[in-house]
Amino acid sequence: MSNPSLPISFADISAAAARLQGVAHRTPVHTSSTANARAGAELFFKCENFQRMGAFKFRGGYNALAQFSPEQRKAGAIAFSSGNHAQAIALSAKLLGMQSVIVMPKDAPEAKIRATREYGAEVILFDRYTQDREALGKQIATERGMTLIPPYNHAHVMAGQGTAGLELIEEVGTLDILLICMGGGGLTSGCAVAAKHLLPQCDVYGVEPLAGNDFQQSFRSGQLVKIDVPRTIADGAQTQSPGNLTYAVCKALLKDVLTVDDHALVNTMRFFAERMKMVIEPTGGLAAAAAMLGDSEGKLDVKGKRVGIIVSGGNVDPAYYAQLLRDGV
Amino acid sequence: MSNPSLPISFADISAAAARLQGVAHRTPVHTSSTANARAGAELFFKCENFQRMGAFKFRGGYNALAQFSPEQRKAGAIAFSSGNHAQAIALSAKLLGMQSVIVMPKDAPEAKIRATREYGAEVILFDRYTQDREALGKQIATERGMTLIPPYNHAHVMAGQGTAGLELIEEVGTLDILLICMGGGGLTSGCAVAAKHLLPQCDVYGVEPLAGNDFQQSFRSGQLVKIDVPRTIADGAQTQSPGNLTYAVCKALLKDVLTVDDHALVNTMRFFAERMKMVIEPTGGLAAAAAMLGDSEGKLDVKGKRVGIIVSGGNVDPAYYAQLLRDGV
Repeated sequence: MSNPSLPISFADISAAAARLQGVAHRTPVHTSSTANARAGAELFFKCENFQRMGAFKFRGGYNALAQFSPEQRKAGAIAFSSGNHAQAIALSAKLLGMQSVIVMPKDAPEAKIRATREYGAEVILFDRYTQDREALGKQIATERGMTLIPPYNHAHVMAGQGTAGLELIEEVGTLDILLICMGGGGLTSGCAVAAKHLLPQCDVYGVEPLAGNDFQQSFRSGQLVKIDVPRTIADGAQTQSPGNLTYAVCKALLKDVLTVDDHALVNTMRFFAERMKMVIEPTGGLAAAAAMLGDSEGKLDVKGKRVGIIVSGGNVDPAYYAQLLRDGV
Repeated sequence: MSNPSLPISFADISAAAARLQGVAHRTPVHTSSTANARAGAELFFKCENFQRMGAFKFRGGYNALAQFSPEQRKAGAIAFSSGNHAQAIALSAKLLGMQSVIVMPKDAPEAKIRATREYGAEVILFDRYTQDREALGKQIATERGMTLIPPYNHAHVMAGQGTAGLELIEEVGTLDILLICMGGGGLTSGCAVAAKHLLPQCDVYGVEPLAGNDFQQSFRSGQLVKIDVPRTIADGAQTQSPGNLTYAVCKALLKDVLTVDDHALVNTMRFFAERMKMVIEPTGGLAAAAAMLGDSEGKLDVKGKRVGIIVSGGNVDPAYYAQLLRDGV
């Protein structure tokens, strides 16, 4: 099953997998008999929290930068991000021997700024109340000839993220359902292309935070919907609108877009800590929460099914993590 | 290299590995470039926190119960424990279709009592201020004809624990140093036998809590030393004295017994949460702390070496875990 009108194909994901071979971690798939008992299903957790820099984002960032022309390599890459995409571009650039600039708000957490610098990036801070990020970025990109890599709406990024889904299916075989944590839709679109190619009968779902359901609204209405910046602990999924490329893939391949609320995310984080001995970030629990606790609308039925779950990342400040475990939201 | 005077041999560990095949998880070996950079060494973490019931103890418990005679199976197993050994025996008995009784102090954490019952054991509570545990256990064992399985000083238990070391070496190949979390010495003795057989040049160390260095004192003095119940957050290593069997193996095969203090354990737990996205219990960080932060005496030098580290378990109450991450000790 291949759709030539879509921005990425299964061949793009295979090519990305070859580029990432020996560079990205082939992350493990964990299972838990307790989780299975609670869900009444067979759950397979693809653990991208164990990916390099702590999230799946490394796959897409590296896949994009590895395809730069010699001229692009010379000038380097630029990204706007205070999250996992920043570290993904910084680390990928370092590994490929090129420069990177990450533009971050100057009130971003000190730990994230430091971590991005430790990966070798030049961090340029801006004041989000007085400066226009887009204009600043364009100015730097133009002055230095750098290539801007967006966090999700980019074919090479999407294809790279899809390798997580590819690896999961290579390891566990057939799945009835695949659940994917969804922000801008980069991971979801890449994994959907891999899954629908290898397992055409598999139902693929994106899972968003309830408060930030821009993709669900868009998917169901058939047009790109823009929302206000959502208030949710899932900081990696605070997108306001799908990208046009990620939307095109998801509209064509997903069964539906589901949501879970912040309480379900905290309970899922606690379950992972207590039973699976894993630290996950709030966004990283979206898909697992839908499988184990159900989605907000009660639409998903996993009973008796083989269910693949992408756990997207584990980058969370330890003090904040401790607070969430102890006090909830 | 095989020493016929020792209570277990490499053949016992191979046989245990065959028994555990398809029953125990073959736990992953994780690496971290950040950890390597900090230690100036190449570190390989064998993640027994991802083992069934959350700790290596399942290996030894199952290996012991799987060797019961038909008569023993009929009557079942009994253990004294409020920790990981309790859950190991309970789960192993359940999988082998036999009954188990776990004798626990009645002021043990409610969560541990519940977890042990969930694994199918009959939990018998006693008052540690008025009742003699040994007498109670003997009475139950005699009345019901049950076989008592001690937590570490038992050849089948020791051989089972050794499979963790065997798997690590099978996966990563040669090691210059192997560091093992040490309580009663079951894990350490089993892994030492595996390591010294496969890699005679490898220096093998047990790592104890500084406050509970009964094994270090015994190892260095050449006789079994008994200490008061140690005050340490490493609740899995609060043994007062080595067992005679574990001591015999460790005395013959270890390079030395090292110690780390509770502050190093908390810092190691934080590093695992922040960088490796793993929950480990305090005891589970003993070996990793020695590698990354150094031992209390400054004797260990890992620079430039290939270092195997057994991460022994991840069973820690989430609220207490959150408190340790936030406030330390």
